[in-house]
Amino acid sequence: MPSAMNITRTIQWPDEEILAFLRELRERTPLTHYISNQVAANITANVLLAVGASPAMVISSNEVEGFVKMAQGLLINIGTITSRDERAMLKAAASAHEAGTPWVLDPVAVGISEYRTRVSNDLIAFNPSIIRGNASEILSISGAFGGSKGTDSTASSTDAVDAARYIAAKTKSVVAVSGEVDYITDGESVVAVPGGNVIMTRVTAIGCALGALMAAFLPVTGDALKSAVAASAVYAAAGERAFKNSKGTGSFAAAFLDALYLLGTE
Amino acid sequence: MPSAMNITRTIQWPDEEILAFLRELRERTPLTHYISNQVAANITANVLLAVGASPAMVISSNEVEGFVKMAQGLLINIGTITSRDERAMLKAAASAHEAGTPWVLDPVAVGISEYRTRVSNDLIAFNPSIIRGNASEILSISGAFGGSKGTDSTASSTDAVDAARYIAAKTKSVVAVSGEVDYITDGESVVAVPGGNVIMTRVTAIGCALGALMAAFLPVTGDALKSAVAASAVYAAAGERAFKNSKGTGSFAAAFLDALYLLGTE
Amino acid sequence: MPSAMNITRTIQWPDEEILAFLRELRERTPLTHYISNQVAANITANVLLAVGASPAMVISSNEVEGFVKMAQGLLINIGTITSRDERAMLKAAASAHEAGTPWVLDPVAVGISEYRTRVSNDLIAFNPSIIRGNASEILSISGAFGGSKGTDSTASSTDAVDAARYIAAKTKSVVAVSGEVDYITDGESVVAVPGGNVIMTRVTAIGCALGALMAAFLPVTGDALKSAVAASAVYAAAGERAFKNSKGTGSFAAAFLDALYLLGTE
Repeated sequence: MPSAMNITRTIQWPDEEILAFLRELRERTPLTHYISNQVAANITANVLLAVGASPAMVISSNEVEGFVKMAQGLLINIGTITSRDERAMLKAAASAHEAGTPWVLDPVAVGISEYRTRVSNDLIAFNPSIIRGNASEILSISGAFGGSKGTDSTASSTDAVDAARYIAAKTKSVVAVSGEVDYITDGESVVAVPGGNVIMTRVTAIGCALGALMAAFLPVTGDALKSAVAASAVYAAAGERAFKNSKGTGSFAAAFLDALYLLGTE
Repeated sequence: MPSAMNITRTIQWPDEEILAFLRELRERTPLTHYISNQVAANITANVLLAVGASPAMVISSNEVEGFVKMAQGLLINIGTITSRDERAMLKAAASAHEAGTPWVLDPVAVGISEYRTRVSNDLIAFNPSIIRGNASEILSISGAFGGSKGTDSTASSTDAVDAARYIAAKTKSVVAVSGEVDYITDGESVVAVPGGNVIMTRVTAIGCALGALMAAFLPVTGDALKSAVAASAVYAAAGERAFKNSKGTGSFAAAFLDALYLLGTE
Repeated sequence: MPSAMNITRTIQWPDEEILAFLRELRERTPLTHYISNQVAANITANVLLAVGASPAMVISSNEVEGFVKMAQGLLINIGTITSRDERAMLKAAASAHEAGTPWVLDPVAVGISEYRTRVSNDLIAFNPSIIRGNASEILSISGAFGGSKGTDSTASSTDAVDAARYIAAKTKSVVAVSGEVDYITDGESVVAVPGGNVIMTRVTAIGCALGALMAAFLPVTGDALKSAVAASAVYAAAGERAFKNSKGTGSFAAAFLDALYLLGTE
């Protein structure tokens, strides 16, 4: 981490404040509404259930507006977006904004098409508490970099810290950049979350589920920066433990859920 | 189980009749059509394949009517319903009703919106053989209780037995209530299925897949009550075994499929 | 394998040419676009990531045409097709055809409805590099056999070799038939890929993900026959190893991804 990035704080695990948030999350079982992609639909619920949240994937334009108001947090992830999803997402974001339900935007693969960029911008207008993505996505949003190789990151997270700070200052959203080290910023502070394991990039939708975990922390911490940091740190700790208990990506996925389920309960 | 509930029978495992049904299911590999939610799409097929059924998720209005007539059982699960799904579900239910294909309704999260309640009622009009849900969902259908916290149960299954009996008497459907103990009723008899493990509530869509397993048993037993009981008992037995072979929710999910795959074959 | 089938070659594992292709795939991380079904959405990405490809499920009519041109290979799988998917699939196939992006068609359950047969024919008109299916599906396409029991194969792969050769000669697509032995033909040569394990038919969507793996090999080998053979052989080798490390279908699925992740890296 080059000092030029002006890292305010680096999380060291175990972190007692974050473990306290995790225990509180398990007690409060926050109802977490998510509208996500078909690839992530299952693992998102399983990540939320593993840490004790109460997930609900409600995606119809006929009911999202009302449901967002009952939920304590919302994730919108545009991974496999269609026009129908777009309508529901915009309704949900507007309702969250109006009702004060804190929400997270995961603008997956933004930049690969004009369509996706337009939808992402339309959603950001409804003030997400947190915008999370990989370096390419964050760079794409900031306009500093336009090309994303599929949904993978072709840029490192350090490259995107300036872009993240720029977006955060402009939108008032906290911006979280995933990578070998995760960086989370509110436009002023930059918190670094090291840890995890590179194998996490080889299991699909683990990043997508991280956005949902951030949404589950929002009602618990009452603070966007703390929520994004807590979720990232819990992920990093569970990822490290799971890597030790696995032989490849298949056993890692199971071990990761096990680690999330057990983290902080021992 | 309070005696006031008038439990007719409590399943004790191993149950020889149910094991015989399971063996017959494995031999007959019933073609089981399901229209389910995006979270449950994969695990539903894997549960059916583990016990030897032949799953098919066919969801288009262009073909569900014909396919229902080829299938030996059908599950309709409204978890992530959209208007498009609604049209296909109503066509499939009508076709099942007309053709005599026995079918199961899983009215996930009914009660969280007027939309969901209306669709659930419209589907019930096509005479499902079995309606399955958690206590909140069953109470919501009966009108005795209106609030469901996401898709989790906020009421215990014992609370819902009276509601289940009421619905069964009124609709002629068998009603199955999932919980620490499952209760299945045809409006007169109430069968209790104890067992399983609470960790099953922490793995998403396991309950959804139970509805599909009930649908797979329908052509085998030729009886809605026996099918719902058999599926619930097989689940409870597999869940107990899987819990012993797992460390958390990730390894439990794999161990549960293993247990279903092996159950009754040794 | 009856000699009447005129098998040109039978793959013996380990095969050095295929292992070299696999190593090259891991180095080049080909961007592999897939439009697949809801059941296969997750495992398809995980299979691709396990071997080092870069998967992207982009399914909206608003962006598939452009994305296909950025991708190095495409899979279209019609498993849970709806009218909306159909429109996106036809756009993607047309764009692939025009841009020269090689692509794979998996006509799941073709033959169970007129709708599915019509869509399959419309897609074949855009010249897939590879058509893959089980024996029933291939027989259905060839018109030699019309009935498919769900998505399972009710005919053996040997029965379908003549049909495959017939389709390949007529369409100029390579045709791959999955079964106890896989057969791949360009209309003249027939390559047999033995191996794997029958438990692979009891884990949903493993076959669907095979189509995606073929698409990932297309830019690496530059040859449709070699790509289909390489993907099938890698699958067979990983399946055999995974079977030895598993107790049932749940642990098999994880062990299979582990085996794909490790294959050829030791």
